[in-house]
Amino acid sequence: MTHLFDDPETFAAQALQGFCDIHARLVRPVPGGVLRASATPRGKVALVIGGGGGHYPAFAGYVGPGFADAAVAGDVFASPSTRLVHDVAARAERGAGVILGYGNYAGDVLNFGAAAERLRSRGIDVRTLAITDDVASASDAERAKRRGVAGDVAVFKIAGAAAETGLDVDAVEAVARRANDRTRSFGVAFGGCTLPGAAGPLFTVTDGQMAIGLGIHGEPGIAERPIVAASELATILVDRLIAEAPANGGPRVAAILNGLGSTKQEELFVLWTAVSALLRTRGFEIVSPLVGEYVTSLDMEGCSLTLTWLDEELERFWLAPCDTAVLTVGTVTAAPAADAEAEIEDEIAAPVTPGAPASQAAGQRIAVAFTDLAAALKEAEAELGRIDAEAGDGDHGQGMARGSAAAAQAARDAAEAGAGAASVLAAAGSAWADRAGGTSGAIWGLGLAAASRTLSDQAAPGAADIGRAAGQALQAVLTLGGARPGDKTLVDAFHPFVEHLTGAIAEGQPLTAAWTKAAEAATRGAEETAGLVPRLGRARPLAERSLGHRDAGAVSFALCSHTVLKHLP
Amino acid sequence: MTHLFDDPETFAAQALQGFCDIHARLVRPVPGGVLRASATPRGKVALVIGGGGGHYPAFAGYVGPGFADAAVAGDVFASPSTRLVHDVAARAERGAGVILGYGNYAGDVLNFGAAAERLRSRGIDVRTLAITDDVASASDAERAKRRGVAGDVAVFKIAGAAAETGLDVDAVEAVARRANDRTRSFGVAFGGCTLPGAAGPLFTVTDGQMAIGLGIHGEPGIAERPIVAASELATILVDRLIAEAPANGGPRVAAILNGLGSTKQEELFVLWTAVSALLRTRGFEIVSPLVGEYVTSLDMEGCSLTLTWLDEELERFWLAPCDTAVLTVGTVTAAPAADAEAEIEDEIAAPVTPGAPASQAAGQRIAVAFTDLAAALKEAEAELGRIDAEAGDGDHGQGMARGSAAAAQAARDAAEAGAGAASVLAAAGSAWADRAGGTSGAIWGLGLAAASRTLSDQAAPGAADIGRAAGQALQAVLTLGGARPGDKTLVDAFHPFVEHLTGAIAEGQPLTAAWTKAAEAATRGAEETAGLVPRLGRARPLAERSLGHRDAGAVSFALCSHTVLKHLP
Repeated sequence: MTHLFDDPETFAAQALQGFCDIHARLVRPVPGGVLRASATPRGKVALVIGGGGGHYPAFAGYVGPGFADAAVAGDVFASPSTRLVHDVAARAERGAGVILGYGNYAGDVLNFGAAAERLRSRGIDVRTLAITDDVASASDAERAKRRGVAGDVAVFKIAGAAAETGLDVDAVEAVARRANDRTRSFGVAFGGCTLPGAAGPLFTVTDGQMAIGLGIHGEPGIAERPIVAASELATILVDRLIAEAPANGGPRVAAILNGLGSTKQEELFVLWTAVSALLRTRGFEIVSPLVGEYVTSLDMEGCSLTLTWLDEELERFWLAPCDTAVLTVGTVTAAPAADAEAEIEDEIAAPVTPGAPASQAAGQRIAVAFTDLAAALKEAEAELGRIDAEAGDGDHGQGMARGSAAAAQAARDAAEAGAGAASVLAAAGSAWADRAGGTSGAIWGLGLAAASRTLSDQAAPGAADIGRAAGQALQAVLTLGGARPGDKTLVDAFHPFVEHLTGAIAEGQPLTAAWTKAAEAATRGAEETAGLVPRLGRARPLAERSLGHRDAGAVSFALCSHTVLKHLP
Repeated sequence: MTHLFDDPETFAAQALQGFCDIHARLVRPVPGGVLRASATPRGKVALVIGGGGGHYPAFAGYVGPGFADAAVAGDVFASPSTRLVHDVAARAERGAGVILGYGNYAGDVLNFGAAAERLRSRGIDVRTLAITDDVASASDAERAKRRGVAGDVAVFKIAGAAAETGLDVDAVEAVARRANDRTRSFGVAFGGCTLPGAAGPLFTVTDGQMAIGLGIHGEPGIAERPIVAASELATILVDRLIAEAPANGGPRVAAILNGLGSTKQEELFVLWTAVSALLRTRGFEIVSPLVGEYVTSLDMEGCSLTLTWLDEELERFWLAPCDTAVLTVGTVTAAPAADAEAEIEDEIAAPVTPGAPASQAAGQRIAVAFTDLAAALKEAEAELGRIDAEAGDGDHGQGMARGSAAAAQAARDAAEAGAGAASVLAAAGSAWADRAGGTSGAIWGLGLAAASRTLSDQAAPGAADIGRAAGQALQAVLTLGGARPGDKTLVDAFHPFVEHLTGAIAEGQPLTAAWTKAAEAATRGAEETAGLVPRLGRARPLAERSLGHRDAGAVSFALCSHTVLKHLP
């Protein structure tokens, strides 16, 4: 959705004004568009690009040394008028001819074509270059009818570099046409886009579906099908482009994985791992790939892949330096590559010193308890996530499941290697902290480590030892985590748990009875945290109940305390 | 919505892998994060930044010469573990100490703090730096409790530059703390964000509302209120930050207008025009502003404004060169600024030569007809847009309304200046093409220009003249626009219109009768275009009927032909 505007009618012009203010080092505004802020010598071919607004960084983002000389800017999704194209190009030309570059859309063809006629009548040598990279928009037999999408960027980059080296207008035009002939794009959309001020989207894609080959203004695509995993989408994109490879294409390709507006950069990175792997499997060498937003369509959800089959000359221009708002090629401060440094040694777990038999048995029991705990937390993962999302960021279930699974594995490994109770618990705590991430991972790791330090590898822990271990774990959490009872953290469950456990043990109650009371206190603590004190069913594990709004850390602690009960000595 | 992933559990790690593949020139992967790919000399303070994933470009996008030495990367919205922070920092340190920089969130405070302890136990001088720029998250009296948001970028940029110049760890820490003390951010959200693989958003903002001060993980904000225009939002952001200015803040500020994930770059540019104007009005000098996505929150909709009150030293570091995936400061090829060139003269309309009285009267009639046409097209604007959106980009109504309004104004101006029929029509056509933009603007401009050339400024046009003018206009559209009947363009209405008009005139029918037939033929043509031939109501203007799917250009042509009817001589 487009939310930020003053007047929809002036959206494109105001956006261009803001762009010019920010990038005054690179561009200066002229009526209808922008020129480079830096001086361009006479005798250089001028590359003037443009089209409708709503496609940023296309086109003003590509003006600067090594790339375009000027960009003409229309209103949102509307070609600039003939007059504006003419005026911007007339200001940009330096006596050596002009290349007018634009996507192959009817309005742009018409307005840039008519402007070329007007410029020629002023004695300027003008060549028009309509980009035709979108393979979904027409068959290979009708390539001249294809639309221009993110291939614009590859072709204009190469043409701009050719012009910068001083080639004449015939040569720049030839390079640019060859680049266009060797460039192919293919895209998918997950959602449409909204014009500034419009009540609803300009077009839509069915929820959960992706539209294959949909045009960036909603022009009809090829098919709609359910959204697939990133790696499967990579296959769809890569294989379609390979099937459309130019006859004389070699193994070296420039690649642009382009986001259409609302597709997150990190999603593109994920997709890129699959795209790049597949391209390499198919025998391609990828040259200086671009992954990000390069030609957008307002807030459209989706992406496209562009490949340009390079030859020696095209590759040189693709890699040539440029300095624009969006793309900087060439290093600012040449820094030598890092040596293959001596990597710091990984911290390797100390070799296990076998424990005494009684403590080994306790260690094995601990490993089984962690295995059961990991299963319970995996089962509760989604519910814990849901509880956490009400107040936090919703990752608690995932972190607990991951941490406990790693702890269980480490505990089993240590127990199998003959470790005693203290070492098994220490291994579990260390693995939990290392794998879980987040706050809860660090807290559980610290707590388990503190508990393990109260135990030994020589004896099986008794009830008093276990009470002391729990107390030390709580102390570590309070000291290092900084939370107090009532702060809506796991302390709200952990604190009453320890109080009841140590109290009952001190009264001489059997461990199982003491632990049961403690687990019930933890459950009450988790519930009271949010002021909800259901009086029923408190003996059952929390995951079996209907849950209200409460702290996920306290809930998961209570769940753990119930799960461990049956593994007590 | 997050659509592109393979396994939600490995999303952050896979994204980092893709990032490293693309930016191999700048970074190399290590367990838990990235280090600079370029060598760093021993004796330089290492700046190690990090936090959870889902915030790209934070944090890996800021690793490179002049900025950070390394970034630690957690899972989505989860702090990296203590061990990962420790390991990445241990690899990055060069014997001169480490600054650990992170946003002030519980998990990060805990894990970076614990890692600092572990590093110190290895003899490394470590300073921790929790960024606290978000004014919405706690009062000024409790600044240490504030969260870190986009202010991260300003503080880390300055700290990185300070480290690069060779300052020792005490000095770098002092600069970084001063930068943090002088940095304030404030933001609004229009929508929540979706974790990879989640069925729904993590949190939501009521439709049409904006949440003021909402945290980037959905932490509670200050208030919710209806979305306002960009200029009003600028006031909310700027004035809140100014109210929070540090006691010793001067007039020079670094500014970051940050998009949270789904807010379009062009929207930020629009907002920036208002933000920058207001800051200047309030007496501030803006130093090298950044406008774009700098610290995001998956696909969250919204934005934040960050100001850092600079002093001489902070400004020097803010402006120092850096070379990272996201931010490049310093020019690649130093190019001189453009001279104040002799601007090309604006093409000025030729002065009006008064027409003969009869032709002047016809010119005035033409001006009235265009005024009526502009009113009709303004009224039909939304409907034409809707029809166009079914097959095209939805801008047809806007373009026609804008073009006809400009044409009407130009025609009235010309008629008032005494122009004859030909000159009035020529002025209208020229204005239409210049102001409408897009395909339809160019087409109408060409058609009206061709028609005007068949008329004269000496006589009032008769029926035969009008028929010839329409024929020439059609010819120009066919020749220059390249469309043929049946291509679903305005030609489908225009062609039968001209056939019936010229046929009936040739038969000697009165102009009004001939035109009526022609307009009806245009209506049929517009309808048949889409295979829809409703047999009823054909005599009424199209805008009054219920419209099916058809070409908007043909529909608007038919509407125009009906509207003009009552202005015929």
